[in-house]
Amino acid sequence: MPGQRKKSADGRSLETLARDRLVIEGIDPAIDGGRFAAKAVEHVPFAIEADIFGDGHEVVAAEIVPDGGSAVRMEKLVNDRWRAEIVFDAIGPARFSIVAWRDVWGTWARDTARKAEAGQDVSVELEEARLLLTGLRAPRADKPAVKALADAAASGDIETLLSEETAALMSRIGPRGNRTTSQSLPVWVDRERAAYSAWYELFPRSLGEEGRHGTFRDVIGHLDYVRDLGFDVLYFPPIHPIGTTNRKGRNNALRAEPDDVGSPYAIGSPEGGMDAVHPELGTMQDFDDLVTAAGGKGLEIALDIALNASPDHPWLKEHPEWFERRPDGSIKFAENPPKKYEDIVNFRYYTETGPNVPFWEAIRDLFLFWIDHGVTIFRVDNPHTKPFPFWEWIIGEVRRTCPEAIFLSEAFTRPKVMKRLAKIGFNQSYTYYTWRNTKAELAEYLTELTTEECRHYMRPNFFTNTPDINPYFNHTSGRPGFRTRAILAGSLSGNWGLYSGFEFCEADWLPPKDEYLHSEKYELKQRDFDAPGNIKDDVRLINRLRAENPAMRDFTNLKFFPAHDDRVLYYGRFDERSRNYLLFHVLIDPHSGGEFAFELPLWEFDLPDDASIEAEDAAHGNRFSWHGKEHTLALDPETRPYAVWKLFPPGGAQ
Amino acid sequence: MPGQRKKSADGRSLETLARDRLVIEGIDPAIDGGRFAAKAVEHVPFAIEADIFGDGHEVVAAEIVPDGGSAVRMEKLVNDRWRAEIVFDAIGPARFSIVAWRDVWGTWARDTARKAEAGQDVSVELEEARLLLTGLRAPRADKPAVKALADAAASGDIETLLSEETAALMSRIGPRGNRTTSQSLPVWVDRERAAYSAWYELFPRSLGEEGRHGTFRDVIGHLDYVRDLGFDVLYFPPIHPIGTTNRKGRNNALRAEPDDVGSPYAIGSPEGGMDAVHPELGTMQDFDDLVTAAGGKGLEIALDIALNASPDHPWLKEHPEWFERRPDGSIKFAENPPKKYEDIVNFRYYTETGPNVPFWEAIRDLFLFWIDHGVTIFRVDNPHTKPFPFWEWIIGEVRRTCPEAIFLSEAFTRPKVMKRLAKIGFNQSYTYYTWRNTKAELAEYLTELTTEECRHYMRPNFFTNTPDINPYFNHTSGRPGFRTRAILAGSLSGNWGLYSGFEFCEADWLPPKDEYLHSEKYELKQRDFDAPGNIKDDVRLINRLRAENPAMRDFTNLKFFPAHDDRVLYYGRFDERSRNYLLFHVLIDPHSGGEFAFELPLWEFDLPDDASIEAEDAAHGNRFSWHGKEHTLALDPETRPYAVWKLFPPGGAQ
Repeated sequence: MPGQRKKSADGRSLETLARDRLVIEGIDPAIDGGRFAAKAVEHVPFAIEADIFGDGHEVVAAEIVPDGGSAVRMEKLVNDRWRAEIVFDAIGPARFSIVAWRDVWGTWARDTARKAEAGQDVSVELEEARLLLTGLRAPRADKPAVKALADAAASGDIETLLSEETAALMSRIGPRGNRTTSQSLPVWVDRERAAYSAWYELFPRSLGEEGRHGTFRDVIGHLDYVRDLGFDVLYFPPIHPIGTTNRKGRNNALRAEPDDVGSPYAIGSPEGGMDAVHPELGTMQDFDDLVTAAGGKGLEIALDIALNASPDHPWLKEHPEWFERRPDGSIKFAENPPKKYEDIVNFRYYTETGPNVPFWEAIRDLFLFWIDHGVTIFRVDNPHTKPFPFWEWIIGEVRRTCPEAIFLSEAFTRPKVMKRLAKIGFNQSYTYYTWRNTKAELAEYLTELTTEECRHYMRPNFFTNTPDINPYFNHTSGRPGFRTRAILAGSLSGNWGLYSGFEFCEADWLPPKDEYLHSEKYELKQRDFDAPGNIKDDVRLINRLRAENPAMRDFTNLKFFPAHDDRVLYYGRFDERSRNYLLFHVLIDPHSGGEFAFELPLWEFDLPDDASIEAEDAAHGNRFSWHGKEHTLALDPETRPYAVWKLFPPGGAQ
Repeated sequence: MPGQRKKSADGRSLETLARDRLVIEGIDPAIDGGRFAAKAVEHVPFAIEADIFGDGHEVVAAEIVPDGGSAVRMEKLVNDRWRAEIVFDAIGPARFSIVAWRDVWGTWARDTARKAEAGQDVSVELEEARLLLTGLRAPRADKPAVKALADAAASGDIETLLSEETAALMSRIGPRGNRTTSQSLPVWVDRERAAYSAWYELFPRSLGEEGRHGTFRDVIGHLDYVRDLGFDVLYFPPIHPIGTTNRKGRNNALRAEPDDVGSPYAIGSPEGGMDAVHPELGTMQDFDDLVTAAGGKGLEIALDIALNASPDHPWLKEHPEWFERRPDGSIKFAENPPKKYEDIVNFRYYTETGPNVPFWEAIRDLFLFWIDHGVTIFRVDNPHTKPFPFWEWIIGEVRRTCPEAIFLSEAFTRPKVMKRLAKIGFNQSYTYYTWRNTKAELAEYLTELTTEECRHYMRPNFFTNTPDINPYFNHTSGRPGFRTRAILAGSLSGNWGLYSGFEFCEADWLPPKDEYLHSEKYELKQRDFDAPGNIKDDVRLINRLRAENPAMRDFTNLKFFPAHDDRVLYYGRFDERSRNYLLFHVLIDPHSGGEFAFELPLWEFDLPDDASIEAEDAAHGNRFSWHGKEHTLALDPETRPYAVWKLFPPGGAQ
């Protein structure tokens, strides 16, 4: 016979184990068991599910308890799955837990009803009810009602005890047996722009005229253009002084000509580093004026934080210990052997003994410096080549001061690395969108992004192109492919963007990779912003549809529907709350069109196959009725490479 | 500008975050994030996988570190997934963690090789190597080799530095940068019988002759019968004194006749309770003798722990506080309203203030009592109607004294409840097998059991029938259906069992439920164990195949193959380690046979479609060659309702 030890094999005592009589498991979202926060948006309902059950047959109830907020009762779905939505009203860190209990009154009522129906004597059950009610500690306002119920129990008024009103009251104030609380789980609550934004990228230096280097003042003059296209974030590659040592020339030439402007990613010169602006762009005051002017037009400025120093960056002299060195004392250049990047030197994130704390603090302070200048959106260059803990700490620190801050991760790398960066805090992520071109590729990738666990922490930002990515698809797609790729990006993701030139169908490439010929990274590129053949109308359309339709704000509401042609991607963005329903038909092949069959998703509205539904051509405005499930549509690369429809199913207007 | 705070938003300090530079996530198995132990078997390789990666492009390495054991290097699969197998050599609790690091030498060697191949000057790299090697703290035995390598670096002998031998040495003793350790995860290591067992269930009281009540001595006389059929666990329903108050009669009649023996699940009489034996079965000494005799024949006795007390159980007087009572002072009978079970009273697991500790301890001591009598296998009756923490604590406590103990959960309830019981410690679980009859149902259910996360903690025990379950399928299947259901149970699960009578195709049922007419729960049932029409040969065959073939010991090695007929389930049990491969064709329809086509899975052995493979009819022993992929086979309910084949692919004998 054993002694009186009361601890389980893993050290949990009887008392600790016994406290959680009910099971709360499979909580979703719970990123890596709560190690990371799921992402929410302020004022937007946030769904939480869990498996909840007890032993035996007693009635169970449960609620979500947000830290510092009001509890929300959960609803039982099937197979012991429960669900509720909560709303966070302030940006910043939040937490929730789930509380479940044995509903003593609910169990009594259910069992007593069954016994009464079977004609059994329930006098002992009535006495149980009376005892329960007289012993109940009810809120003052409910005391008279409870007293009345106790009287009903005493007088055998079973009808009152089993009424819906009594059930509602007792569900609220009745005894909660074996209250069990789940672990507390973290949520990060963002402002809406973290989840819903349209980015336009340009190089300020290209906005001069007739060869003159552009300035922040030129950008101010260009704000109306960007706003007219419907964008709300205006993003610049680095705006800092550019190094001259080993400066790259046009088309990434190893040696620059005297008049070459250099890559803005080789940051730092005697004129300053990452906390300075390139003198040819203007002064810091000019920059501040630009931020203010943009804000006045509903545009936010996003900066590029690229932790690349040119060999001329002031920190090399001020903080030599922040850089990697070779045994011969030379500075260590960036490299991906056998390739070397001799215009960029490596920072030292870790020393032999641990993190290089002063450097980490300096980069945190760099973000805060730009926040002081009115910028709260940061596109972070190549975050995957810097340590994950570095970003997790920086983002946490910056958010403590500025919870509005939004970080976009530019990690074109392996899937799990990309996702990890999102987990540790990046609010938005570049994706593989530019390399997903066929119908099957797009459907598979979007299904992953919108239905797998990553949807809780990784918000895609679909850029059609970047200064580094001139998509293979567009090399040969012609204008129709530019139009459809913009529509796809803007309609498949909550965040999307394009880099200047895409609206003019620029596609000259530098084989063999998907790079631009005459890349703007190495030279000024002055454009005619009214050039014919542009796709500005398409860009305006998708940004208008995004702004006008609530369904465009939650990227996870995507549904694919059957269109019987591999050239046509057919999908819906459906928002049940606002009854806002959009359908998209996009011609994936930019070279051949035709008439194809598709199914109107009547089943989504519980309508029979022969029902009718009101619809509107969202591009052209005409309204009509679609009868039945089977339809055909003609798409053509030149005249109509896509169609967008707004549905008005019966049962209430949007 | 902020102060010098160094904590992240969720309280992790810079130093804490920085410690884990590498990412180790997605560890499998990690049941509920490590809350529960995954199950292993002693001496059987236990596979662990994880996603492991760092920032940047450095070479990463990782190993599994079992607590108190030797580290095992992990192998990189695709997509940043890593894998290794470890072996636990002792039953009981175990833990492991994963350690990953930046392989400094590996990175140097890879990058230097690339530079050398590109014809770049590597003199600084050689100096880096020399410094690294002279600074290395190597084990004494390796010092000369390291010295030689340092000399090679000094003399520019790059070939030696980049050799495979050097790589192997440095992989073992080279510097491990940014060592990152995962959380420690629990494993429960069982003896083999927890995962691989064949159960035979009988009521000892039925083994008398000519109406006489059977005894433990009669069971001793019956051991050879059970052993001859190939079983290794002999399991009895409760063997304790049976109550007389409200005793149930034959066929669950509410009132018993004077000569009715009562249900053994109504435990307890003035003659004793759960720690006593029914006097009509014999004495405790008789029981001990039976346990010893069974052990001598390779059979273990399993007892049924049913926490049901009859109103006559001694504990009602000794420990009235262990029972639920009604307001009128009466004892609370078990019920599922409007049904009442008046021969059974409810234990009180929780009081108003918390767990009923003395009762929990009494039940723990009950298990330990029977362990003292040589029983270490327990079938637990209806565990889902008792609190989960109760079982978790009891199992933990019992295992601390007796890690050999095996608990089989009889929870025919909802899927998540069933799985939770397995998570909290039950070694084996009854399943839905008896209700899965079609090919699609079996394939879907087995795919869940063998491939989803539950495979790490829930070990199925496929019973063909139980005293409570007379399967619907067998009501009309006739003998062919009994044969196939035994073969399926024994070949699809690591653990299987049958309840006495199945081998004689007993199927008389008590409509409307799947219950036996003249249930042995309420009366003696004396059988002719040589009755004609039995299926003992089939039972012997499957138990022999299980004993002879290593592939039958790990239920997760199941593979389904294409047989183009819904009446035929076609699957393999393939063990790569022992090169032991079995194929099963089972006729699911007991009423119609025929010739059907199937594919020999040559692809599993990387063989072309026109290859040949040696095979043996595992039932009849003849050996032959199968040529090519496409084959046909005739199955017939009466003459051949199933076929079993052993494959001998080229490349080494089993």
